[in-house]
Amino acid sequence: MITRLDSIDPNFYSSLSSILEFDSNEDESIEKTVNLILKDIKNDGDKALLNYTRKFDRLNVDSPDKLEIPKEEWIKSLNNVPKQQREALEISVNRIKEYHEKQRAFTWSYKDSYDNILGQKITPIDKVGLYVPGGKASYPSSVLMNAIPAKIAGVPELIMVSPTPDGYINSMVLAAAALGDVDRIFAIGGAQAIGSLAYGTETVNQVDKIVGPGNAYVACAKRKVFGTVGIDMIAGPSEILIICDGKTPAEWIAMDLFSQAEHDELAQSIMLCPDMDFINEVEDQIKKLIHRMPRVDILKKSLSNRGALIKVNNLSEACDIANIIAPEHLEISTENATELVPLIRHAGAIFIGCFSSESLGDYCAGPNHVLPTSRTARFSSPLGVYDFQKRSSLINISEKGSIGLGKIASTLANSEGLQAHASSAQYRIDGKYHDSK
Amino acid sequence: MITRLDSIDPNFYSSLSSILEFDSNEDESIEKTVNLILKDIKNDGDKALLNYTRKFDRLNVDSPDKLEIPKEEWIKSLNNVPKQQREALEISVNRIKEYHEKQRAFTWSYKDSYDNILGQKITPIDKVGLYVPGGKASYPSSVLMNAIPAKIAGVPELIMVSPTPDGYINSMVLAAAALGDVDRIFAIGGAQAIGSLAYGTETVNQVDKIVGPGNAYVACAKRKVFGTVGIDMIAGPSEILIICDGKTPAEWIAMDLFSQAEHDELAQSIMLCPDMDFINEVEDQIKKLIHRMPRVDILKKSLSNRGALIKVNNLSEACDIANIIAPEHLEISTENATELVPLIRHAGAIFIGCFSSESLGDYCAGPNHVLPTSRTARFSSPLGVYDFQKRSSLINISEKGSIGLGKIASTLANSEGLQAHASSAQYRIDGKYHDSK
Repeated sequence: MITRLDSIDPNFYSSLSSILEFDSNEDESIEKTVNLILKDIKNDGDKALLNYTRKFDRLNVDSPDKLEIPKEEWIKSLNNVPKQQREALEISVNRIKEYHEKQRAFTWSYKDSYDNILGQKITPIDKVGLYVPGGKASYPSSVLMNAIPAKIAGVPELIMVSPTPDGYINSMVLAAAALGDVDRIFAIGGAQAIGSLAYGTETVNQVDKIVGPGNAYVACAKRKVFGTVGIDMIAGPSEILIICDGKTPAEWIAMDLFSQAEHDELAQSIMLCPDMDFINEVEDQIKKLIHRMPRVDILKKSLSNRGALIKVNNLSEACDIANIIAPEHLEISTENATELVPLIRHAGAIFIGCFSSESLGDYCAGPNHVLPTSRTARFSSPLGVYDFQKRSSLINISEKGSIGLGKIASTLANSEGLQAHASSAQYRIDGKYHDSK
Repeated sequence: MITRLDSIDPNFYSSLSSILEFDSNEDESIEKTVNLILKDIKNDGDKALLNYTRKFDRLNVDSPDKLEIPKEEWIKSLNNVPKQQREALEISVNRIKEYHEKQRAFTWSYKDSYDNILGQKITPIDKVGLYVPGGKASYPSSVLMNAIPAKIAGVPELIMVSPTPDGYINSMVLAAAALGDVDRIFAIGGAQAIGSLAYGTETVNQVDKIVGPGNAYVACAKRKVFGTVGIDMIAGPSEILIICDGKTPAEWIAMDLFSQAEHDELAQSIMLCPDMDFINEVEDQIKKLIHRMPRVDILKKSLSNRGALIKVNNLSEACDIANIIAPEHLEISTENATELVPLIRHAGAIFIGCFSSESLGDYCAGPNHVLPTSRTARFSSPLGVYDFQKRSSLINISEKGSIGLGKIASTLANSEGLQAHASSAQYRIDGKYHDSK
């Protein structure tokens, strides 16, 4: 059902790597298809977009403006959300806003001894595209997690795209878009939606950055348009790593492992624990509880293919292993959880203490649920307001400063063989400003 | 010599686009070569690295550890730097440090009404690779601009790679590496260096992120390894846009345009000005001064292929055009320069007032000279400390909090059909923690 490993095994690290391994290489045939679609969208705009939407989503739309889902429709969806869900959504929105407000960066500057003013100006990205997968894998919570930081950053135009295969529209997704303050929604998807956002068509505005998860075609298209527009990380399968001291109820841990494994067959659930009896207990709970779960088939596959219960020597070794794994979600389900946090260098989100189940973070704790996967937490961060803001350096040099700094710049420019750089600095030193006035 | 445009011309925007156009598409043959090199490095490590270094750099090294340039050699280079240059380098280092210190992010957290603690933990990236081009295009200033923010972020291991074709080592680059606190240097380059940093070899440590500019092979290799490691932006040709009211000495503006154009034939220099007489004056100065410049051949090519002097109606229109161009470097060389800054939404660095020549920013003003090119300032930022720090969300839920938030999470999880998510939250509400203890 689930792999068992022990860190004292001499082959432990190679066994661990083979469990972690995930081949993200894109299929060559996918790449070819995506190249063709992007080229068609770039050259033919709306015409190509309509053709591909007819072909892939079986959506028979006669004019491109009908691809837009009007705002009245989202508002109607929002008003139809059952009261309990509506309240839950609204509390989530408020908590996500409260957390992300704290990530906002502001313009700063300072004066140096020459009275030069140096600083950094913060501006939002003008136009952002948000991809939302269609059908059953489209989650209203993901709409909120992407839209709210963009809007807090001050993005004036947030364009959502989501395919509606055979006309199926997820009304909870529309409701979330209304709550998340999205500006426009188009019923388009796949590489053709990414191409439309990146290059613009007659109907779909060109954006500056595209965020949001998608299937292999969407991921490949995002890679291809990177540079023309900004993109967020390409998401791999979702992962949880639980460090447990054996003092959390075993069924809580089993269910936390399930909550990751139920996403899809490639999702990864791993526990590290120094207590062999507890590991056995968790395995028993897994076996007992799995049959009660509606998504039992997915659970079985992901747990047996990519799950593991790992015996470690102690909690400090568990933290070392966690840093190697650099997990998307890390639960530290121990009594002294707070003390272990300083030992963790790489993780998307750290859930501290046995009450902090990942599921709370997925919906309503406040922090973002879009997190770096596949060991990329070694160098990247959760999605945040900072992904929708950008910086410009501010350099305001005084007359005095241009003399002091000019000498240094011209020395270094000459040593690099860049004489025009040197002269440009030297001209300010020579003071021809007042002469020539 | 240089294109002249006028914003009242009905074809102005299409003429402007054709001047801005730059095809960054990578050659298919480059892509093939890079794929092969990366595969070889991944499979054969040091052996492949030695082979490619022999082949491309004509470096006959018999054992891989000889690819490392020992620290004593950098220190020797630093001690041999002439006094004036050494002082200039040291002042630059201090000014770059002073500015970048202000970019450092710190861990934060807050308590909500449930006594949950939510926050964001900041950690440096563990290992960073810094690519420095070999030969004449290798600039000591670029070593400082990359190394200093990494070290301020707290990166413990900064590994520089730079090819030494035919054994040529730029001693100013080694000196800058010593001043910039680089940890190790390897005399390797090209796609084989990028592959070695991304996958690791027996001799070169695997890193988590690779930064620094390089030729088309290096750029292609960086794109390919993105995901396995983080990368910075892929740099295009350098650009300057000058907004001038006609009150700056014309020869200053001509030289500022030169200081960009001298980089290479693809570099771009554009001026926007409402004063036709001044535009004529600048053109005269260009014609007069260009023959005094040692890099006159490069200047002629870049100015005639990609340069432009553009007549605009007024300074506010100039700012609108600047936002379309989203230049790497923007000089606002006007009397009321500070008042125009709020109108600028997209630029890598904004040089304010006639004394703020780009050349000062390139070396010693303090802000970074690694800036977004090719319109990517619409969605990206100068290189900074933030590129070497990453964030982890902190989520510490209280027992009380797990009840309040658990209800919301389980409502939303059930609505998304993720029952294990819901149960995982529900278990905490049901309070089996104390029962099971």
